[in-house]
Formats: sequence, C-alpha cells, structure tokens
Amino acid sequence: MKKTDLSSFAELDFDRDRRCGFAEFIYGASKTAEQIAMIMAELASHGKPVLATRVSPDNARKILKKLPHAEYDELAGTLAIPGKKKKKSPGKVAVICAGTSDLPVAREAANTLTVCGIENILIPDCGVAGLHRLISKLERLRQADIIIAVAGMEGALPSVTAGLVECPVIAVPTSVGYGASLHGITALLAMLNSCASGVTVVNIDNGFGAACAAVRMLKIRR
Amino acid sequence: MKKTDLSSFAELDFDRDRRCGFAEFIYGASKTAEQIAMIMAELASHGKPVLATRVSPDNARKILKKLPHAEYDELAGTLAIPGKKKKKSPGKVAVICAGTSDLPVAREAANTLTVCGIENILIPDCGVAGLHRLISKLERLRQADIIIAVAGMEGALPSVTAGLVECPVIAVPTSVGYGASLHGITALLAMLNSCASGVTVVNIDNGFGAACAAVRMLKIRR
Amino acid sequence: MKKTDLSSFAELDFDRDRRCGFAEFIYGASKTAEQIAMIMAELASHGKPVLATRVSPDNARKILKKLPHAEYDELAGTLAIPGKKKKKSPGKVAVICAGTSDLPVAREAANTLTVCGIENILIPDCGVAGLHRLISKLERLRQADIIIAVAGMEGALPSVTAGLVECPVIAVPTSVGYGASLHGITALLAMLNSCASGVTVVNIDNGFGAACAAVRMLKIRR
Amino acid sequence: MKKTDLSSFAELDFDRDRRCGFAEFIYGASKTAEQIAMIMAELASHGKPVLATRVSPDNARKILKKLPHAEYDELAGTLAIPGKKKKKSPGKVAVICAGTSDLPVAREAANTLTVCGIENILIPDCGVAGLHRLISKLERLRQADIIIAVAGMEGALPSVTAGLVECPVIAVPTSVGYGASLHGITALLAMLNSCASGVTVVNIDNGFGAACAAVRMLKIRR
Amino acid sequence: MKKTDLSSFAELDFDRDRRCGFAEFIYGASKTAEQIAMIMAELASHGKPVLATRVSPDNARKILKKLPHAEYDELAGTLAIPGKKKKKSPGKVAVICAGTSDLPVAREAANTLTVCGIENILIPDCGVAGLHRLISKLERLRQADIIIAVAGMEGALPSVTAGLVECPVIAVPTSVGYGASLHGITALLAMLNSCASGVTVVNIDNGFGAACAAVRMLKIRR
Amino acid sequence: MKKTDLSSFAELDFDRDRRCGFAEFIYGASKTAEQIAMIMAELASHGKPVLATRVSPDNARKILKKLPHAEYDELAGTLAIPGKKKKKSPGKVAVICAGTSDLPVAREAANTLTVCGIENILIPDCGVAGLHRLISKLERLRQADIIIAVAGMEGALPSVTAGLVECPVIAVPTSVGYGASLHGITALLAMLNSCASGVTVVNIDNGFGAACAAVRMLKIRR
Amino acid sequence: MKKTDLSSFAELDFDRDRRCGFAEFIYGASKTAEQIAMIMAELASHGKPVLATRVSPDNARKILKKLPHAEYDELAGTLAIPGKKKKKSPGKVAVICAGTSDLPVAREAANTLTVCGIENILIPDCGVAGLHRLISKLERLRQADIIIAVAGMEGALPSVTAGLVECPVIAVPTSVGYGASLHGITALLAMLNSCASGVTVVNIDNGFGAACAAVRMLKIRR
Amino acid sequence: MKKTDLSSFAELDFDRDRRCGFAEFIYGASKTAEQIAMIMAELASHGKPVLATRVSPDNARKILKKLPHAEYDELAGTLAIPGKKKKKSPGKVAVICAGTSDLPVAREAANTLTVCGIENILIPDCGVAGLHRLISKLERLRQADIIIAVAGMEGALPSVTAGLVECPVIAVPTSVGYGASLHGITALLAMLNSCASGVTVVNIDNGFGAACAAVRMLKIRR
Repeated sequence: MKKTDLSSFAELDFDRDRRCGFAEFIYGASKTAEQIAMIMAELASHGKPVLATRVSPDNARKILKKLPHAEYDELAGTLAIPGKKKKKSPGKVAVICAGTSDLPVAREAANTLTVCGIENILIPDCGVAGLHRLISKLERLRQADIIIAVAGMEGALPSVTAGLVECPVIAVPTSVGYGASLHGITALLAMLNSCASGVTVVNIDNGFGAACAAVRMLKIRR
Repeated sequence: MKKTDLSSFAELDFDRDRRCGFAEFIYGASKTAEQIAMIMAELASHGKPVLATRVSPDNARKILKKLPHAEYDELAGTLAIPGKKKKKSPGKVAVICAGTSDLPVAREAANTLTVCGIENILIPDCGVAGLHRLISKLERLRQADIIIAVAGMEGALPSVTAGLVECPVIAVPTSVGYGASLHGITALLAMLNSCASGVTVVNIDNGFGAACAAVRMLKIRR
Repeated sequence: MKKTDLSSFAELDFDRDRRCGFAEFIYGASKTAEQIAMIMAELASHGKPVLATRVSPDNARKILKKLPHAEYDELAGTLAIPGKKKKKSPGKVAVICAGTSDLPVAREAANTLTVCGIENILIPDCGVAGLHRLISKLERLRQADIIIAVAGMEGALPSVTAGLVECPVIAVPTSVGYGASLHGITALLAMLNSCASGVTVVNIDNGFGAACAAVRMLKIRR
Repeated sequence: MKKTDLSSFAELDFDRDRRCGFAEFIYGASKTAEQIAMIMAELASHGKPVLATRVSPDNARKILKKLPHAEYDELAGTLAIPGKKKKKSPGKVAVICAGTSDLPVAREAANTLTVCGIENILIPDCGVAGLHRLISKLERLRQADIIIAVAGMEGALPSVTAGLVECPVIAVPTSVGYGASLHGITALLAMLNSCASGVTVVNIDNGFGAACAAVRMLKIRR
Repeated sequence: MKKTDLSSFAELDFDRDRRCGFAEFIYGASKTAEQIAMIMAELASHGKPVLATRVSPDNARKILKKLPHAEYDELAGTLAIPGKKKKKSPGKVAVICAGTSDLPVAREAANTLTVCGIENILIPDCGVAGLHRLISKLERLRQADIIIAVAGMEGALPSVTAGLVECPVIAVPTSVGYGASLHGITALLAMLNSCASGVTVVNIDNGFGAACAAVRMLKIRR
Repeated sequence: MKKTDLSSFAELDFDRDRRCGFAEFIYGASKTAEQIAMIMAELASHGKPVLATRVSPDNARKILKKLPHAEYDELAGTLAIPGKKKKKSPGKVAVICAGTSDLPVAREAANTLTVCGIENILIPDCGVAGLHRLISKLERLRQADIIIAVAGMEGALPSVTAGLVECPVIAVPTSVGYGASLHGITALLAMLNSCASGVTVVNIDNGFGAACAAVRMLKIRR
Repeated sequence: MKKTDLSSFAELDFDRDRRCGFAEFIYGASKTAEQIAMIMAELASHGKPVLATRVSPDNARKILKKLPHAEYDELAGTLAIPGKKKKKSPGKVAVICAGTSDLPVAREAANTLTVCGIENILIPDCGVAGLHRLISKLERLRQADIIIAVAGMEGALPSVTAGLVECPVIAVPTSVGYGASLHGITALLAMLNSCASGVTVVNIDNGFGAACAAVRMLKIRR
Repeated sequence: MKKTDLSSFAELDFDRDRRCGFAEFIYGASKTAEQIAMIMAELASHGKPVLATRVSPDNARKILKKLPHAEYDELAGTLAIPGKKKKKSPGKVAVICAGTSDLPVAREAANTLTVCGIENILIPDCGVAGLHRLISKLERLRQADIIIAVAGMEGALPSVTAGLVECPVIAVPTSVGYGASLHGITALLAMLNSCASGVTVVNIDNGFGAACAAVRMLKIRR
C-alpha cells in the first residue's frame, strides 16, 4: 500500500483539523473497499481519529481484514478507529429520533460524535404521535448542551422539542416514509418551516453532518 | 332579476341536499357580486341554507345592499343566510388552529358548520411550539365528535392532536408561511405523512371542504 | 424470545387503544422477520388484535413458522392475528377500487378493517372509464356508512362517487400508473382537488391509514 | 400605418394556411394594442379569417376604434374578424366544460372554431360531481365528431366522457382551483393519466390549441 | 381455465367496442402470465382483436406456450392475436421517432394500430438535430392522415413536424434521456408548449394511447 | 387599548423566555398595524425586549405614532424596542452576505441579535465570484463565535466560508435571483448540500430564525 | 454625490476587467434609481464601458436626468454608456430568437455585446414551427463565430440550430409562455436535453449572461 | 457483419463532421454490445475518430473481443478508437472536478476531448470547501483556453473558478450527492444561477456534451 497509490485518487487535507476543527472523514458511498482502507490507514498513521460513513457490509468485511481494530456498526454503516488519547468532552449531545426506522441516521450522528470525543446519548422512539414518550424524557433532554432531532415522515419532532428546551436543536430529516414523504423531502421542508424559532436543518439522512455541526457549536465554549 | 338570467351561467342542483347530504354552496372567488347575489337569492327562496365562500369585501358590500339579512365575516370571507328552522345538531365539532394567521381558514370551516346546523367551537393558538397551550385544552377537545385541525408552516398540529384523541381528525393545511412553505404544499405533505394513524387531509386553505367532510361524518350517527 | 430483546428496538404503546381507539399496528417495511414476529407475539399475548402491514413473502414465511396461526394475504402484504372475542361491528365500510392493479391497497384497507372488527365489503373494478360498472353498484354503496375509494392514474373515482352518496368518502391514491402519474402524486393531487365537497384524502398507497380513519369515524356512533 | 412598420416586429406567414391548414392567429398576451391592430388589419386585407386571443379589455377598446367590425368576447378574451365567405363546416365539435369558472377557456375554443368555419356547440356545467348533468347531455355529445372537454381542479371530465363516446376527446386542463391545483398542473397531470384510452391533451388554459387540433382532425374527412 | 377464475380478478367490458370504438386491451405491466393468458383467451374466443402491452419476455414465453398463435414483439413488449377478418383500413397513420432509443414506444404504437386494422408506417431516426433526415421524408409524411411523433430528450420533433403538415400530430414523449430529462417530464412539457398550433399530447411512453387516439380520430371519416 | 382586545387574537407566551431562552417576537407579515402595536405595547410593559419583523413602511408609520420610541429599519422591515438593561453579550456573531440584494435579510438577522443583546457585525459584499473580497475579511471572521452567511442565487457563500473557519456557520438562503433561482429554492438546496461539513440551514429569507439559532448556540457557553 | 455614499452599499471591483475579461455591470432589478446612477457615474469616470440591466422605465427616466448621454432601450430594459475608444471586434455574434415575445431577452444580449465592443446581429422570428424562416437565414448564421439562440415555450430553437452549424450555440430559455411552460423551466429543461451535441445553456431570461459567455469565448481567439 | 444489418437500427450521419464540426458519437446506454460494435466498426472504416460513451463493463468486454484495438476506460465508461492522423490541437482545455466521486464525469469529458484531438489536462479534488486546493492550481488554470468545471452536491466550483479566470467556463453538474441533491438537480440549478457572469451549463453528468461544447468553441480560433 504505497502512498503514491493514494495520491492518484485523493489529496488528504491534514490541515483541516486546525482550520475547521475536525479531521477529514471518509464518505464511503462511492468508494471501493480498497480506497477506504487505504485512506483510513493513512489517516490513522497520522494519529487522527478515523471515521468512514455509508460503508456497506460487504465493504466493511473486506476492510476489517486489513484494519482489524476498526469498529463497524452495520445499522449505521459507520466504520471507526477511535483516536488515541481522549480529551474531556467539551459538552454533551442528546440524539433523539422519532421511530425505529430513523435509528440508522441517529446512530450515524452518535458514532460521529463519539469519534470526535463528544459525550452523547441516543434516545429512540420519541415520535410526536405519542407525546408522553417525549415528555417523559424531558429531564434528560434539558441536561444536554445540544439536541440532534432525527425524524422522517412529517418531521414534527424538532418543532415540538425546540418548544420545550432552550439549547440548539439540529434537525435531521430522514428518508423514512413512502408516497408523499418524497424520500425525505417532506420532512426536510417541514423542519425548515418549524414554528419553533431557531431550529436549523441539515440534508436528508445526514446524521454525520448534524454531528459535525454540533462539533462546531461546542467550539463556542472553548 | 329574472330566472332566465341565472340559467345563463349556472344550473343549480336543488337535489344535492337529498343526494349528498348538504345543499349547493357558492364558491365566490371567480364570480361577480351580481352572480353571487342572484344565486344566493334563488337558493334562499327555496328555503335552503345559503353560504358563499371567498367573497371579497368589495363584493360583500354590493351583495349586502341587495341581501341585507346576510351575514358577512370579513376575516373568513364568508357570506351566509342561515336556514329557517334549526334541527338539533347531530354532533359537535372542534375547530383548532395553530396561529392567528390560520384564523381565516378556521373560521371558514366554523361558519360552514354553523350554516349546516352543526354545533361547533373554534379554539385558536394551539401551535405545537408551545405544547402547554394544546394540552391545557385537551379536556375540551375530547368532548368533540370530530376535530378539524388547521395549520400552516410545518403542519404538525394534526399529528400531535390525533395522538391524543380517538375521534376523527380532519387536517387542513394553510398557505401561511414563506419560502420553503411553498404556499402550503409543505403543510399539506406533512399532514399526509402523519405518524398518527387515521388522519385525513383536504386541500390547502380548504376550511369549507373540511366542514363538509364533518357533515358527511355526522351522517354516520343518523 | 425475551422481552428485554424487544425493548432494545421498540417501546410498545399498550395504552394507545384507550387513547386513540385502536391498538398499535406494525409497519413491516423496515423491520426484520424476527422483529415483526417478536412484536406480534408480544401484542397477541396482551389479547390485542394484531396486524403487520407491508410484510414481504420472504418475511411472512419466516414469521409463519413462529406464529402459525397468523393469516398472510400476499397480495395485500398483511399478516394478521384476529382478536379473541368479536364485538358487533359499529358500522359497515365499502372499499371500492378502480382497477385490478389497485387491489393490493384496497385489500390492505379491508384487512385492517377486519382486524379492527369492522364489517366491510370490497368492490373492485369501478373505474370511471366504464361508468356503468360504478352505477350498477350504487345500491350497495348507499348501504355503507363509509366508502373508501382507492384509485391510481387520474384518481377520479372518489369525486364521481362522492357526487352520488352522502356518507364520508375517504380517498386513497395509489402509485399505479407510469410516466406522468409520478408514482401516485397525480392521483393524490387530483383527489385533493375533488369538485365533490367533503372528500378527505390519505397518503399514497395508504390503505391502512384509510381504514384507521374509518375506525375513528365509526366512534362517532358510539 | 405603413407595412414597413409591421415588418419591424413580425414576419407574417401567409403560406401557413396551405401548409398547416389554418391561418396565422395572433397571441395577444404580449403585444400592444397597436401591434395587434396592425396585424389584424394586414391579415384581413388578405381575406384571411382573423383571430386574436388573450386580448385585454383595455386593448380591445383601443383596437375596436380602429377595427369597428371586429367582435370582442370579453369573457374569452378573443377578438375576431370572421372570414368573408363561409364554406360548409367539415364537421361538428362539442365543447363541454366542468364549471362556470372554466367558461373563458371553453369559449376561447368555441370562438376559434367559429372563426375557422367549424360548426360548434358549447355545453357548460358538466362537472363529474353531478353525473346526471353529463349523462342527460349524452345524446347531444354522441352527435359530435369531436369533443373538447375543458376542466380544472381534478380534471376528471375527459376520462368520464371518453368512456361514453367513441369520437376523439381533446382534454383542456384549466388553471381553475387553488392550493394543490397548482395553477392547473393537477388537472393536466390527471388528464394525461386518463384511464379512458385515446384521450389527448393540450396545455393549461389552451382552448385555442384544442380548437386547432380539432381543425387538424377534421382534415381527415377531406 | 374456468371462466369463474377470470371473474375473480377482472370484469371484461365486451361492450366497449360498440361504446368507445375499440376493444378492451390488456395492460400487462401489473399482471401475471396466467392472468394475461386467461384474458387473452377469453377475448379471442369472442372474436375480438387481442393486444397485451408491456409484457416482459419472461411472461411472453409462458403465455406463448398456452397461446402459440400469438405474436410477440420483444422490443415493443406487445403480444397480439390479430382479429379474424380485416376490414379496409379507415386511413393511414405514420409513426415517426427521433432516435433508436425511442423505437420501443414507436413500435407499441404501430403494433396497436395493426391490431386495430389501421394501415401504418414506422419511420425511425427523424431527430431534429439532423433536419435533412426529417425533410427527406416529408413526402411520405404528407400522405398520412395522422402522424404520431415519438421523442424523448427535448421532445422537439412534434413541433417541427406540425409546422410542415396539416394533418393531426399526436405527440408521444418518451423517458429516453438522463439527468434533466426527468424520465420524460421534460419532453412532455416541451410538447405541451409546442409553438406549432394544434399538437396534442399523451402520457410518457404511451405509444398505445397515441394509437387509440388515432383510432378515435379515424372515426371522423366514417 | 384594553387587554381583553388583545386576548381575542393572541395568547402571549411570557414564559417562553425562561423555557426557550428568548422572548416571543412578532411576525408582522399577516397582522394589522393595530395588532402589532398592541402586542408590542404589552410585551414592552413586561420589560421584555420587543421585536416585530416584516413590518411594512405603512404599518411602521402607524405604529410609530403610538410607540414613538420604537426603532424602524425600513430595509430590514424590523421594528424594535430595545430592552431596558443590557447584560454583557455572551458572544460575538458575524453576519456576512453575498450581494447588496441580500442586505435586507442580513439586517433582519443583525437587528434580531441586537435586540437579544448579542454583539454583532454585518459584513456585506462577500460574494464568491470575487474571492479576494471574502478572503480579505478572513481575520475578522475568525474572531466571531458564530457566522451567519446570507446568500441568494447559487448560495455558495456558506460552503466556502465553512471551509475557512471552525466556528458554526448558519446558512440563510435568500429569494434573490430570477428564473432558475426558483425564489430561493436553489440557494436553499445548495446550502443543504454543502461540501463543507457541519453547515446548518434555515428557511429562505429567514434572517430572524438564523439569529434565534445563534442565540440558542450561545447558551452553550453559559 | 460623494464616494463615501457609494461605499455604503457597494464595493466596486475595478480589477474584474483584468481578471475576468469584462467590467462590472449593474443588475438594476433590486436597486434604486439613485444607486444605479451613482454606480454608473463612478464606473464611467474610470473610463469603463457601463451597462445596467433590468432598469424599469421609471428608474430610467430619473437616471437619464443625471446621465443624459446614457442610452435606454425600453424593450430590453438596458441603460448603457458606451466606452470611449472602440477596439476592433474580436469576432461576430448572431443573436436569434423564436418569436416577438422573446425580443426583450434577445436585445439584452445584443446590447450587452455592443457595450463590450462585440459586433453583433439580431435575427428575430426564427421559430421552429416555420422552419423555412430559420433555413432562409442559414447563410447569415454560418458567418457568425457564435450563435446565441433565444426561445421560450418548448425551447427547440437551439437544438435545430446546432444541428446546422459548427460554431458554439449558447441557449437562452425565456419565460415566454403560460401554463406548462412553468415560467421558462420547460424551455430550460428542453435546452439542457438538446439532442444536438455541444449546446450550452444559461439561466432563464439571462440574455446578459449569454453575452458574457460569448465575450469569454472570443478570448480564445486572442 | 453486413451493412444492411446496421441500417435496420441506425442511419449514420457521415456528413455531421463537416456540418457540425465533429463526427457522430455513440450513446451506448441503450444499445447492445452488438449494435455498438457494428457502429464503431463502420465509423472506423471511414477513418473517423470513434467514441462510445456509457458503455458498461459487460458490453465493453464483448466489444473488445471484436475490436481489440479499442481502448476502454471503465471509470468513465468510454470506449474509444483514436483517429489515424493527429492534427495539432487547436487549443488546450482544463477539466477540473470537485471530488473523487465526480471523476467519472470528468474523465468522460477528457476522453472525448482526446478523441477529438484536443489537448487536455484533468485536475481532480478542487472542491471549494478547501479553497487552497483550487487556488494552488490557479497558474495552471490560467494557461487553459477553456475550463470544464465538474461538480455535484452544491455545485459551487464553476462560480468560484469563473471569478478567477477570463476564459470560458463550462459547468457540468453531476448526480453525486444524496437527499436534497436530487440526483444532480441541485448542482444544475446552482450552476445556472452562478453569480460569476458568463458561465454556461450542460446536462447532469454530461461530460461528453461539455467536451463537444469545447470543440465548438475552439472553432472560433480557426
């Protein structure tokens, strides 16, 4: 595995950590197992925390043969090599989701936070059709510095949540649903129109991006 | 005002009452004051309850000169001549709405119900960003046979409501909002994807249609 | 099959029956055979009627090994365990559909009603391009308390039907069609714009939701 | 009014009559009263039938001062100078429309046919929510060589009609409606997905185009 | 193969021929080989011309074992049993298409015409990027009573053609293309906006529907 | 101006400050001058900071007669009554925008921050077509705790900015542009697809919402 | 008119000429007459060619009082101050358009070219529904180095043209049309799907941008 | 392989070279290996440069058996037979792309240029989230006569690039991305709204078309 091979398809940005506050991560969807493994090895050899998202089970199997210490979460599709030394977490993030079908996206967010050294808690099954489930968790939600709210279908969870807390709420629409859910467009639009002020939104199914946004926000505390 | 005039632009359906359970109403948006007045007079002379929707203030003023006993609700844009003898209401409908901007649509629904002889109550300001406002009204909501839930923006009100009650919830999206609300399309899509089972939906801003649906539903009790 | 396993991916809502008028059902599209079987067993053990929708033949085969008394309707994709004691049906629902391609959705509606203990009749092949087929069934339609009208393509069936009856008409658009049918969006939009007053609409292919709406409506008679 | 003026903004196609079977008509929406008047005068001086569509009342008033023998239909927005000698009509076209709001488009079609020397009849108020209105006119419809069916909202009229007759049915969606009618897109999509075979469709509000299509079709009989 | 089986999933409309001018055809996309074969046999036994569209090669193979005299066109996906006695064709239709990728749709149209006993000619490769190819065929086009113009991508063929002939031009958009062709929506929209008057349009890839429209038009000559 | 009047159209939420971290603000777009003035007076009498957004010049003039100490920014459409005592700002926000046409939205954000007691700086004319303009301001940008990046047209500013800084970047698409800008949808979609990780997005033209999100984020530092 | 005033709303980019090959132009749509006049004066004082686009007649009148030597083209909405000394044109551009309604956009392109010192010719009325009009101009078109093809409705002109010439064809969709023209989206999509290879496209109604693209292309000859 | 076979599905346009400046190329997506091989052989026998795009690995393998001297680029999907004698390149084109996922489209462009005898250079990994990567390549970019800028997601690369150079920039949106990238529609829309003047755009993933546009532009130098 020579470095010259790597340079033929990627130009790693080791400086991003200093510039943007987090290392370069690997979007695995359009890469071969060989490419992902090569980049992960390279990043790990520089002591960076390593995370690849959207890794298929097939690719994961091949990569784990070369990088047996990596950790694969099949539901989330993430493959991680945790960083060497862990600093104290700069804050605490709660990742909540509406239904079991939203779990993969919620766990992509949670796993990204973990690799970045951010303390996090994942609270599933908070759908607004059973308000008591959300309200019974309110105490725990109010202890978080940031809430990442993941939901498909009508995407109402972030609005309801943001009306109950004062911390930042990052809304993640998911492609869960059918018909008029339009592969997540409906949830996305709904979240952008939240009647609760100050909700911000990321792309559909982008648990990773929501976690990165949380990392940026926790820089404020520095 | 001769009947032959009327027949040149409309063919009234006096039988609809028997066939569909409610009289023919007048969609005022694309008619002149003269046309609306003529149809209202004709329907009233048959002892029918009379309702015109989407009547502009200008048109209302002209019509009221000819039909001074009609009642105009400027906010809702409805012009009504209540029927002669009132039967006992077959049931009770609660019309709730998310914000003050949704009031015109909610009142179009309420006024239509009133003309049809249905007891109704209008409860504004139930937006999900302040859940306590909705929950404090829960007792009253549970006394209704049917709830018409009117909301714009992210349109989450029907989902949250339907999770709390067992009666029919008719969702009415409104065009309230801007940008990604897409003139009500977002609320419409969200309501169609409600995670609370059994919510049904009507067209954007169609308070009238929601009331008609309630009239149909109350026939079940007959 | 331990209960602790179940709690790791789902939080069943045994109270929903009392709160919303019907039990929690299982959306099978994004669940494994094991998950579906586990939830069905748990719900059945509480004496609840059990219904899973969108169950693939493969999953059904696996589940039926564990729950041999369940009934699978391959066309509809539903897997049901009827409730123990049947109360008298609170009313009668007619499910009509336009063409044979709409049958799966119509049967999802009918099967849901059956599990809920609602008497129902399914009348296929009522497409508006052959009006005589619909009109010849008018007598039967007028005996129903509620009509669920299922149609793809141009989705005209609910409008035509609602002009002929006074009971509630619940319109279910289907994804049947190609090209400009836009996977059911066209039928959905058409139904929302029905020129017959009081038609309400559910999501594309959502036979289950239409049945739930009928269940809610029949509470009015209680 | 010099011919050189005319040539600065338009290049009339006097040969189109021979090539395409009908004269060049004037789309008045984006032209000044002066331009429309000049083209009309020029065409009339060549003995051509003359028709301008989408002429505003203001423009019509100015043009009528210069061309007092022209006939203006304010509802349709058409301004016509009938051709000198009338040949026998090559056939008969029925223009039907769903509601009074669709009348302007239906009359644009009828007026275009008249200018082209085609016998035609306009039958309003055939909306499918009151089937008896359509069915009572069936005899007259079956005497037509071609039916132009004009409808907004859910656009179901052409489907229902085409299931009852064997002649060509040209569907014209209108922008009548609100909310999810999407300015006529819904009616357009519905008509393209007609379950009745052999319906063809023109652009939204394009009564003129439907009439031109009928003119082309009647060439078949030549 | 008992008739009772057939009635469980279809209600054949033997009267359509008289009512609408052509027999009931079979949309094969959502039917099993068994269902298609059963309906074809039934229709053939009544002496009707028989056509099934969108039949997959797999289904065709199975059906041909039962109905060996049927003719399968794999490119078009049509399976036909020509009618017994052929009347003289009431006219002549030219089917033209823009590129080789549009051929399947063009042949679906041509095969439908053939089954209906209409003389037709298929002229491929008339794309407007090489105008000489279209213009060199103009003589043949002018001999047709009707032209069916099939095109994907920017869908300009019907406009250019209709500017050159006086007969009806039926435009069929195809789903040929990628990216911004939006699976045929672009061609469809373009055709609806044709600057050549009197073009009518059918659904995307609907060669069958265009042929049916031609059958309707040729009734004019009767 | 009696309090009973106010309660007829609004139910003020004086507790929101404690619950969500900022006071209730007034969305002026769908309210009369009288309504806005009444709510502003009521909120001010409770010592709350007061802000109304989307106030037209006409309405502003009327309100300023009643509340002469309010401050109107015509470009932004905001009307503010600053709170009594100012606490030290919890952080510093930079509001940048691409072109002069984006200024109204940028100032709505800045004015909202000011009313909330947040130190802020507005830096216009940072469009990516002249990168030197953005890069020359990099030092100032890196001193901010949060950047609100406002842009219409292709909406590239947040991506480019987020690649240069480590703090949170809140993207605000504007409706500036024409044609394929689709009233801001293009900028919105582009921002949601930012190749720079961790950008979050609010609704089109929602400068107010972006400011509220910043207020939430600065709670992290508490 | 002090320079400090100007700097409060704009930061002129005098270096763009050297960097991008053409001076900064003024997009007049969202600016006041005062702002436009101030920027025009400033640019003119630096000896730059000056062009403002989308200037309303009202604004033009006010500006012309201050800058009487500017030239206003009301149809195109452009206001220009030609540069002092004219270099020889680096090439020749033909601007063609489909109908008279497309003229404003075509002239915006032509006027922009003129200000940039590019020789150009405007050829109107080349719509593809009358091919002879385009073909009769072919000789002139083949003498151009670049063709800018402007069309609304179905937008077929660039495809047909590009099949006849070997020079670059820049396609400009216009918002001319109604209904399914979707304000120019249809023409835009059609042009992007041109079956003639090598056509490039700019935004709807963006005659200015097409001219700028031509300026860039003529740099190739330098 | 007889010529008569070929004529049954294609009518090659050997004159296109002279008329449009480049030979007919083969769009391989909807053709069989046999068809592609036959056309390639025929074109090669006329001494034309030969290029087939969108050739699947399976098809390529079959074709290479018949045409072993062809060169296949699996990533780009192109299969080429370079022309016999190479003239001096008329200019130099730089193809840049944002990320590794955009490489297939970029290489389709580069390979097309190579077959056309145009000198070109491919520069990957210029994404705007790491501006230093683009800026470090500025010197090389400024030596190009034309830049083809390929990008998915938010599609900002062409805008940023065009602000830095004076040569033509051809923007190619790619379908890289997920969720709100809408299969490339977002990048396409963003590029059409570029704030940098004079950017032109081709269809999504259309590297081939961008290269053809460059070929046309380089004719200007002739």
